[in-house]
Amino acid sequence: MSKVVRILVLHGPNLNLLGRREPEVYGHRTLAEIDAELESWAKERGVELDCLQSNHEGELIDRIQASMGEVAGILINPAGLTHSSVALRDALAATGLPVVEVHLSNIAAREPFRSHSFVSPIALGVVSGLGAAGYRLGLEGLLGHLEI
Amino acid sequence: MSKVVRILVLHGPNLNLLGRREPEVYGHRTLAEIDAELESWAKERGVELDCLQSNHEGELIDRIQASMGEVAGILINPAGLTHSSVALRDALAATGLPVVEVHLSNIAAREPFRSHSFVSPIALGVVSGLGAAGYRLGLEGLLGHLEI
Amino acid sequence: MSKVVRILVLHGPNLNLLGRREPEVYGHRTLAEIDAELESWAKERGVELDCLQSNHEGELIDRIQASMGEVAGILINPAGLTHSSVALRDALAATGLPVVEVHLSNIAAREPFRSHSFVSPIALGVVSGLGAAGYRLGLEGLLGHLEI
Amino acid sequence: MSKVVRILVLHGPNLNLLGRREPEVYGHRTLAEIDAELESWAKERGVELDCLQSNHEGELIDRIQASMGEVAGILINPAGLTHSSVALRDALAATGLPVVEVHLSNIAAREPFRSHSFVSPIALGVVSGLGAAGYRLGLEGLLGHLEI
Amino acid sequence: MSKVVRILVLHGPNLNLLGRREPEVYGHRTLAEIDAELESWAKERGVELDCLQSNHEGELIDRIQASMGEVAGILINPAGLTHSSVALRDALAATGLPVVEVHLSNIAAREPFRSHSFVSPIALGVVSGLGAAGYRLGLEGLLGHLEI
Amino acid sequence: MSKVVRILVLHGPNLNLLGRREPEVYGHRTLAEIDAELESWAKERGVELDCLQSNHEGELIDRIQASMGEVAGILINPAGLTHSSVALRDALAATGLPVVEVHLSNIAAREPFRSHSFVSPIALGVVSGLGAAGYRLGLEGLLGHLEI
Amino acid sequence: MSKVVRILVLHGPNLNLLGRREPEVYGHRTLAEIDAELESWAKERGVELDCLQSNHEGELIDRIQASMGEVAGILINPAGLTHSSVALRDALAATGLPVVEVHLSNIAAREPFRSHSFVSPIALGVVSGLGAAGYRLGLEGLLGHLEI
Amino acid sequence: MSKVVRILVLHGPNLNLLGRREPEVYGHRTLAEIDAELESWAKERGVELDCLQSNHEGELIDRIQASMGEVAGILINPAGLTHSSVALRDALAATGLPVVEVHLSNIAAREPFRSHSFVSPIALGVVSGLGAAGYRLGLEGLLGHLEI
Amino acid sequence: MSKVVRILVLHGPNLNLLGRREPEVYGHRTLAEIDAELESWAKERGVELDCLQSNHEGELIDRIQASMGEVAGILINPAGLTHSSVALRDALAATGLPVVEVHLSNIAAREPFRSHSFVSPIALGVVSGLGAAGYRLGLEGLLGHLEI
Amino acid sequence: MSKVVRILVLHGPNLNLLGRREPEVYGHRTLAEIDAELESWAKERGVELDCLQSNHEGELIDRIQASMGEVAGILINPAGLTHSSVALRDALAATGLPVVEVHLSNIAAREPFRSHSFVSPIALGVVSGLGAAGYRLGLEGLLGHLEI
Amino acid sequence: MSKVVRILVLHGPNLNLLGRREPEVYGHRTLAEIDAELESWAKERGVELDCLQSNHEGELIDRIQASMGEVAGILINPAGLTHSSVALRDALAATGLPVVEVHLSNIAAREPFRSHSFVSPIALGVVSGLGAAGYRLGLEGLLGHLEI
Amino acid sequence: MSKVVRILVLHGPNLNLLGRREPEVYGHRTLAEIDAELESWAKERGVELDCLQSNHEGELIDRIQASMGEVAGILINPAGLTHSSVALRDALAATGLPVVEVHLSNIAAREPFRSHSFVSPIALGVVSGLGAAGYRLGLEGLLGHLEI
Repeated sequence: MSKVVRILVLHGPNLNLLGRREPEVYGHRTLAEIDAELESWAKERGVELDCLQSNHEGELIDRIQASMGEVAGILINPAGLTHSSVALRDALAATGLPVVEVHLSNIAAREPFRSHSFVSPIALGVVSGLGAAGYRLGLEGLLGHLEI
Repeated sequence: MSKVVRILVLHGPNLNLLGRREPEVYGHRTLAEIDAELESWAKERGVELDCLQSNHEGELIDRIQASMGEVAGILINPAGLTHSSVALRDALAATGLPVVEVHLSNIAAREPFRSHSFVSPIALGVVSGLGAAGYRLGLEGLLGHLEI
Repeated sequence: MSKVVRILVLHGPNLNLLGRREPEVYGHRTLAEIDAELESWAKERGVELDCLQSNHEGELIDRIQASMGEVAGILINPAGLTHSSVALRDALAATGLPVVEVHLSNIAAREPFRSHSFVSPIALGVVSGLGAAGYRLGLEGLLGHLEI
Repeated sequence: MSKVVRILVLHGPNLNLLGRREPEVYGHRTLAEIDAELESWAKERGVELDCLQSNHEGELIDRIQASMGEVAGILINPAGLTHSSVALRDALAATGLPVVEVHLSNIAAREPFRSHSFVSPIALGVVSGLGAAGYRLGLEGLLGHLEI
Repeated sequence: MSKVVRILVLHGPNLNLLGRREPEVYGHRTLAEIDAELESWAKERGVELDCLQSNHEGELIDRIQASMGEVAGILINPAGLTHSSVALRDALAATGLPVVEVHLSNIAAREPFRSHSFVSPIALGVVSGLGAAGYRLGLEGLLGHLEI
Repeated sequence: MSKVVRILVLHGPNLNLLGRREPEVYGHRTLAEIDAELESWAKERGVELDCLQSNHEGELIDRIQASMGEVAGILINPAGLTHSSVALRDALAATGLPVVEVHLSNIAAREPFRSHSFVSPIALGVVSGLGAAGYRLGLEGLLGHLEI
Repeated sequence: MSKVVRILVLHGPNLNLLGRREPEVYGHRTLAEIDAELESWAKERGVELDCLQSNHEGELIDRIQASMGEVAGILINPAGLTHSSVALRDALAATGLPVVEVHLSNIAAREPFRSHSFVSPIALGVVSGLGAAGYRLGLEGLLGHLEI
Repeated sequence: MSKVVRILVLHGPNLNLLGRREPEVYGHRTLAEIDAELESWAKERGVELDCLQSNHEGELIDRIQASMGEVAGILINPAGLTHSSVALRDALAATGLPVVEVHLSNIAAREPFRSHSFVSPIALGVVSGLGAAGYRLGLEGLLGHLEI
Repeated sequence: MSKVVRILVLHGPNLNLLGRREPEVYGHRTLAEIDAELESWAKERGVELDCLQSNHEGELIDRIQASMGEVAGILINPAGLTHSSVALRDALAATGLPVVEVHLSNIAAREPFRSHSFVSPIALGVVSGLGAAGYRLGLEGLLGHLEI
Repeated sequence: MSKVVRILVLHGPNLNLLGRREPEVYGHRTLAEIDAELESWAKERGVELDCLQSNHEGELIDRIQASMGEVAGILINPAGLTHSSVALRDALAATGLPVVEVHLSNIAAREPFRSHSFVSPIALGVVSGLGAAGYRLGLEGLLGHLEI
Repeated sequence: MSKVVRILVLHGPNLNLLGRREPEVYGHRTLAEIDAELESWAKERGVELDCLQSNHEGELIDRIQASMGEVAGILINPAGLTHSSVALRDALAATGLPVVEVHLSNIAAREPFRSHSFVSPIALGVVSGLGAAGYRLGLEGLLGHLEI
Repeated sequence: MSKVVRILVLHGPNLNLLGRREPEVYGHRTLAEIDAELESWAKERGVELDCLQSNHEGELIDRIQASMGEVAGILINPAGLTHSSVALRDALAATGLPVVEVHLSNIAAREPFRSHSFVSPIALGVVSGLGAAGYRLGLEGLLGHLEI
């Protein structure tokens, strides 16, 4: 297809701390590095990424709405909002776009309240526990679903 | 590394029906075709797969035990056993190997009882809802973890 | 009374999408059109409306606080925040003003988590499932309570 | 439309006490007065009401069934049956008619058991906490839905 | 129809003990006698039965899968697996065949955990508490559904 | 036995609508036709039926009490009262007669609240999901229990 | 006081069977005998009783309403309605009269669902498990409260 | 009977404060006065009471054990221990004696945790909410049960 | 008694790994060594053991059934099946034999789901947390019960 | 070791009744006899026991604290305190000593509330349902753990 | 004020072990030292403390009652009784005095059952997780409330 | 230490209303006055405070992150976010700093949903119910922990 495909990549609260805190757990790469790698990988496949990290639920929702009609799918790590934000879920669902949810750590192996995600039931799929690589794998799954 | 790395790939109950039932949902590829593709992809990376599908919990456990010392990790779609088998979880945990859990469909979007997995808390990570591609993505995540 | 009565009208996250998404479900009118109609209806009764839609919980709370002493009541569709925001509830309760909660769809007929509202227990009343007309009916109920 | 539209108006157990008990809470109007006002309001819109109060679940169900084919919608305050009667819910659902549920008080602000309604999930909508005015508002919502 | 109709009849764990244990509760007939009677009754209606008892979940699933395309319906007493086996449910559901679930005793009158069946929600119907006669009644219900 | 055996057949709320509503779901036969067929089938076995449908819990209980000493067993479809009526359960239990509970639809496959029956724990057995045929099968099970 | 004090005495569903069923459990006295004894005991204290047994929730509520202004208190054994009738609770509460709840058997020692009473929270007090004598003791407690 | 009947009367923690705290709620009589009245009432019926109040669970249990073989029944207001003491329940049950449980206030109308009593399921009966008179009524019920 | 007493000793899934995995937790003895020691200890008391480890629920059930009439009691460590297998429980209960349940680790100190055992309620007793010695202690308890 | 090993043996509330009540259930031996036997058995192994029964939670805790530094382990049957006493649990845990919990009856086969033990999660192990023999078996397990 | 203010300071079960066990967790100061420091700090403010530690619920309650009229407030660390003692709560509430609850460790970060306190809902406030300093801070808060 | 210690002081949603609303409950001091007092108290101890109130979850998180490396600890009253914000908890936990949680009112004495705090389990300690003084006491506890 001659038109460039765009994908929205969203990182929820506190993910801007990646690489700065607990590198032995979350790795040494910063979010900027992860985004850069992801963008480079995507570019090879003719896909452009639109990346945003925010600690504000409202900003994430604003961006999701602004992306309607502009992107073909959404890759999101909702972080702490996973377990509490109905508004984020509603925004994602309202787009009608395929959504892949990513978690760096295995949320099923942490506190019980992390086992419930408001996003998962309206997502296409979920990748969790595979670290920063999970973003790339989730994106690959999303592109595969879009037959790109 | 000169030694070939082996990975155990397990498919739980009813997955032998893939490609034969509801192709519009699960795709047209049979489990044999999925395994073949996965093996070919793995081979290029110097990895050999040891694949088994069984409808018998006990057989899956026997194979997990037999693989101890033979494989570097386990990729498993526990299917219906996901939600009920403590014995399967215990077998996987006893190996001390990294385990990646795969589900073809998005289990968070189905019946409530499918939201709980006995395997996830002892797994490295989970890939769900990304169809047959999920096996390849999960394997890639597992190999990445093993730094292969 | 010679002094104009003012009512705060709040629309929570994603309601700015009204008329743009799923018109067969939510109708063809945009939120601007709904607000305009509501304002026109109110004006005939000597009531001025102060309307705000926001995807940001914090903005909604800021506005509620700023309205204290300025308005005689609040009409709010908290959307997704209905089920998760204690802070919004606390802001509404802190005003001491009568609050009417409106939902376009019948939240009792949707996912189980939508059956609980943090706002309802501190509201004067609730109108749900009556579509955009619900705003007008809720406002009428609120004005009736205020004996306007 | 030349044919007169009829609406069934049902009042559940104990609502016949309105105006006789706790007027400071429920107002001074008796149920007969409320029905009369409602009928007069409806008449102006070419709508006839068929009103019944009963303390007997069975009588309410009998009347709902008898109204099938005779009325265009149902306005009901199920009172105490709201929280316990599956049979009433089934009768309402069996009619296939739009149903609007009304509560004089805000049931979300009372005892926890009053937060669950068996009627709401099969209703078109709900109006609660707006006092006797809620009947008129609910009727207006019902007529709006019927495009009358 | 000239072609013989076949029905799969499955007995779950411990049902092979029928007639050998607690005859005052479960009756004096062995499972073989029950199957023989059932087969004879079916034969008169031009129906052949394919009967299996197994204490192995996997064997029951294997047989269910092997019967796809061979039988017109399934009559099953899942016994203890009723309350724990998602894999058995999935196998039954995967066949797309009508399933009638039978229990010799009234499971609603026993321990609380026996009140939940994983099979019932995907079954056509359930017969419980009517003893060995329940097999015949369930089969009759199944044939009736198949209009045989 | 020379004395005619009588069985009480009870139909709970809304079952009088059978055949009139949603025939594609519940079939085209009215309750009168179902009762007639059942009576004819019973007559051949020397059994007389005493049939009652009521939307009133109290009427059903009155009849159950009036039948004590007159009938040998009870066949009941409690419909919506299944899930809410302790008084009906108590009346049935007080007779000391064998009771068979029938449901036209498979209540385990419907809303979660329909999974609990107050009647089942004191019944001899249950037949559900087998449509109008379920009455005949349940009656047969009841007569079998009575060794008729 | 020269004016005769009247007390409403209500017996819920199935209590008309007293003395006719399970006399070894509930005693040999019929409800009529119990009422007679109670009336005789009351008369000595200048109190007249107004007794009603009904299997119909609606009849009990009608009588409660009709007694408003006529009686000084209510003695009620709600039987099976104890655990399910919000409407009965509301009727009792609406009278504003002191209510004493009586149970022949010890409901805390029976099925778990009998541990919850909708009536108790709005009652003055409860007497349970003391057999038919409980009526007299409850009445005495009620009169004591009324300082009669 | 020539032999004097003895009854153990136990008052749990904090009941020694009766008459000293909140007389408008609990009345002006002290526990000593209540015991004296009760003893006097009992004496007229040839019954001797053995009264003890203690704030110590262990002391209450010691006395219950010491009373075995000495008393014909137990009247107990377990106060706060009602909701927490399995040991007290076990002591009461071990005596094999009839136990009547008394509560001054209506525990069903207070905090939710007060709705559960460890004592009730092993008691003969319960009297609650009837104030200090409840002791006398409970004792009367106990003596009636003992046919004294 | 001159006849040799036989006891069935069953080890559930993954117990064949004993001594091979985590010896610092489970000790250095293999299951074969544990069985040998247990057999030697039993022999001194004139008792023969029939030992089986299996990862297959069905095999364990088959063996339990085959042992009926052959053994005087059962010693079982159900391992992961403890928490999920109703079929195993039913097989054990069907034998009518005394059953002692053993766990190497203290299951009350592990994951919450391990606190519930389907076997315990039908067992004679349970020994948990005492390591491999628990088998011998449990066997001794079983023999004591059998008065051997 | 030349130094005598001491073990604290604690019996909770009501265990002093052993042998005096329900001997067909709990056996004919009194607690004194059980202690004597246990002491004699221990003495042969060079172990001295320090036995205490108390109905007072506080006394048991006092003794546990007094034993710190004096004993090598604790054998306790907490009886009714098992299910309610956090303070007892804390005292046991504070000693840092190995604790074995014993129950005469199988608590998993009794009332549901007996299935939870506050002591088990901090105990070394549990022996339940094996009668008075359970004390000896538990002590043996404790000594084995201490390698005595 | 010329009159000396007295405050009751209560330490629940096991707190007498402070400084003797796990000093790295709870610090090296004994309870006597903590009380002495607290008394010295209080004295400077003209406040006398009345300190008691007990492992006996009953003793704590006795002291609370004895302090009525003698003290102006209560500072209590209920330790393990926090989560189980309704009697202690009732005693504290009965005094009508302001109560400050102290916990050395952060109970919200420990076992789930420690998250519920029976004391907190009737306390003025709570200080937890701030170690021995928490006593002083809680006392300061209590005196502040008393405007001392 | 010569370097000035800084502490981040955060006030969640609606706390800016302090002193303006319900002064009889929350006191007459505004948040600015409370902060000023706190700063003055801190200054005397060589501690500088960095105070922020926000109604925006995201702003609070931004500030927490910005404070990493700048402050020695955090004092926070999360207000309504206490019960709903996982993102705020994660931000606090990510800093690795000691956190003291403050609540003006006693949250255990309010609505049940306020009993759960997402912040408490990752906090050092909690001070609640002690009014504005709680800020100072919490700060003192925090500084004590920091040994300042």
